[in-house]
Amino acid sequence: MSIYFDNSATTKPLPEVARLVFDSLSDEHGYGNPSSLHRLGVIAESSWNDAMNTIARCLGCQPSELILTSCGSEAVETAILGSVPNPARTGMKIISTKTEHRASLRSLDVLASRGYEIIYLPVNQEGAPDLTYLERILDEKVALLTFTYVNNETGAILPLQDIVRLRNKCAPQAKIHIDAVQALGKMPISVKKLGVDMMSFSGHKIHAVKGVGLLYVEANTMKKLRPLIMGGGQQNDKRSGTMAPYLANAFALALEMANDGIDENLERIHILSNTFRYGLTEMGAQVLSPLDALPYVLNVSFPGFQSETMLHCLEENEIYVSTVSACSSKKKQISYVLTEMGYSQTIAENAIRFSFSRFTTEQEIEEALSQIAKIYSQYRLF
Amino acid sequence: MSIYFDNSATTKPLPEVARLVFDSLSDEHGYGNPSSLHRLGVIAESSWNDAMNTIARCLGCQPSELILTSCGSEAVETAILGSVPNPARTGMKIISTKTEHRASLRSLDVLASRGYEIIYLPVNQEGAPDLTYLERILDEKVALLTFTYVNNETGAILPLQDIVRLRNKCAPQAKIHIDAVQALGKMPISVKKLGVDMMSFSGHKIHAVKGVGLLYVEANTMKKLRPLIMGGGQQNDKRSGTMAPYLANAFALALEMANDGIDENLERIHILSNTFRYGLTEMGAQVLSPLDALPYVLNVSFPGFQSETMLHCLEENEIYVSTVSACSSKKKQISYVLTEMGYSQTIAENAIRFSFSRFTTEQEIEEALSQIAKIYSQYRLF
Repeated sequence: MSIYFDNSATTKPLPEVARLVFDSLSDEHGYGNPSSLHRLGVIAESSWNDAMNTIARCLGCQPSELILTSCGSEAVETAILGSVPNPARTGMKIISTKTEHRASLRSLDVLASRGYEIIYLPVNQEGAPDLTYLERILDEKVALLTFTYVNNETGAILPLQDIVRLRNKCAPQAKIHIDAVQALGKMPISVKKLGVDMMSFSGHKIHAVKGVGLLYVEANTMKKLRPLIMGGGQQNDKRSGTMAPYLANAFALALEMANDGIDENLERIHILSNTFRYGLTEMGAQVLSPLDALPYVLNVSFPGFQSETMLHCLEENEIYVSTVSACSSKKKQISYVLTEMGYSQTIAENAIRFSFSRFTTEQEIEEALSQIAKIYSQYRLF
Repeated sequence: MSIYFDNSATTKPLPEVARLVFDSLSDEHGYGNPSSLHRLGVIAESSWNDAMNTIARCLGCQPSELILTSCGSEAVETAILGSVPNPARTGMKIISTKTEHRASLRSLDVLASRGYEIIYLPVNQEGAPDLTYLERILDEKVALLTFTYVNNETGAILPLQDIVRLRNKCAPQAKIHIDAVQALGKMPISVKKLGVDMMSFSGHKIHAVKGVGLLYVEANTMKKLRPLIMGGGQQNDKRSGTMAPYLANAFALALEMANDGIDENLERIHILSNTFRYGLTEMGAQVLSPLDALPYVLNVSFPGFQSETMLHCLEENEIYVSTVSACSSKKKQISYVLTEMGYSQTIAENAIRFSFSRFTTEQEIEEALSQIAKIYSQYRLF
């Protein structure tokens, strides 16, 4: 039995999505350019619009508030670079943390070079940013707050409601961008109810396909947003490049299917995740994900076991996991997220991320626990 | 019989490509993140590498000289914005024309704001830039030359060898970027033989799929290239975002299939295009594409017939064509390309682009000619 516990890195496309993509690519009338004036263009545009309407309905916004991108990183970068004045007006500030994805951190470096002061809130060992400090520095000079909804390494959930409340109270002009790549499809998201201005998503994290991401931008913020990719002026000139209806539809279908029963799945995974957490703790492992983290992610440090060794031992048993986030994993760096949360280098070096999907079963959890126990006991022999 | 003569806007995905995408998305072991350390990651990375090797072989370069992007516009923008110093050093110049795709023109506007002097060469009525003028202005201050290989509205072919020769002689430090979106798969391209530094391509113009583009960057230029999309550092940190092996493979397969018999196809389309050109001229239409243009594109002005009227009359007969380039077509603007080439507003307003593929048949050419003749004679009754 092969067990895939690396769903935060990427997910398996749904069979329904693969079929939809095939049908769309094979459709005798569906291959037009949505920008073309003739019937094939109209059919393609209508297919695109259907998808964007579905996505908008799922997220609780207008389709005109959505930009389809090629990935989560593009969405994040578009939001962070495109929503604030360039160059910065004197004294303008951006607030974030150092536990963001590199797409955010590197965009913030660009903003620093454009004259912004970037303030990184400290985070505690549970990954939560210091809101007392935030309240103190929120003023009329803050242009943007950008945070991650669910941390990709630990599953830590941002206290988003508190942040929105503080912004509304102390710095109503400041925009809020949230990287929700790891949250979508796992916890209910209604962008208007949350009160954020921008939110970034990725298709291949929700069992759609690689090569598609999404950016929500509230209507007023959208008006001023500058595009990252310029060209023919597609998507209301907010993101050029020929529109790909099959990608929009793949995203829409995967999102609809994820949202269907999302609460029940969350509850079920909560129970499985707790079983896993308890089992690993019993073996002597240290769970780094906070108790109130999203249960789809469990970051665990195995004392005396280099994470890469554990990863390959598990792989031998067809159990697939990550050390740090996938995009950083080839660089053999230890996690800057865990380090920033105050964990020692040793603990961070021994950390493994288990990330589940709604298709994760109790049997897989039991089997993984049993294999890990074996690996641990084998290791103890030496 | 439905006749699709809008292949410069987009092409129908090959059935082989649709099948490959489906198989890739359905593969029980193929869905990993190419950056993951475990076996599923290795399989995905190997699939990606196979595709990039194939593309590199087709283009005559190294795989490390290729960046997979999400579209042609992203490739163009990455090349133009990422290859020259930011900000400009004093007096630095960029040379181009005003008949480029908007992805280039808008990137050049950004470079102007970074302190570059942008010099637009005049073009003649055949779309060729003024090389005498080019030779006069080429000096050690030129950072970049950017041109289109095959114009997307007229099929005009750039005198690329002359440009490379002039650059080598007068400004060897200047980089050359070529937008080859409309050339790929229709005429043989070997980037090293051509002697260019960067070349942009698009998947959906070669019967692959929408959502994938490609940028060739010669190894030395690549070293200094700054990424447009930053994040996890994928693709040697030249283009972040989770790599999508199915998109790379779709591009590779479509390119291989296009290259197979490319000369014979070009010759055959040349004959068909000439038949079409002759037939339309006989009816009194004015062909705007130069005689030595790539025969896959034929831009024709129908006196007394607004192009949109002609487009919809043809559409009634299931013949699909474009007025201007697809991405601009909804804006109801007349072609800036034709205007720049010196054509009158009236001629530009009456222009229709017929664009063929290697699957275009003699029967389609005959049928289209016959339908156009009917539309013309009906029109003459009123």
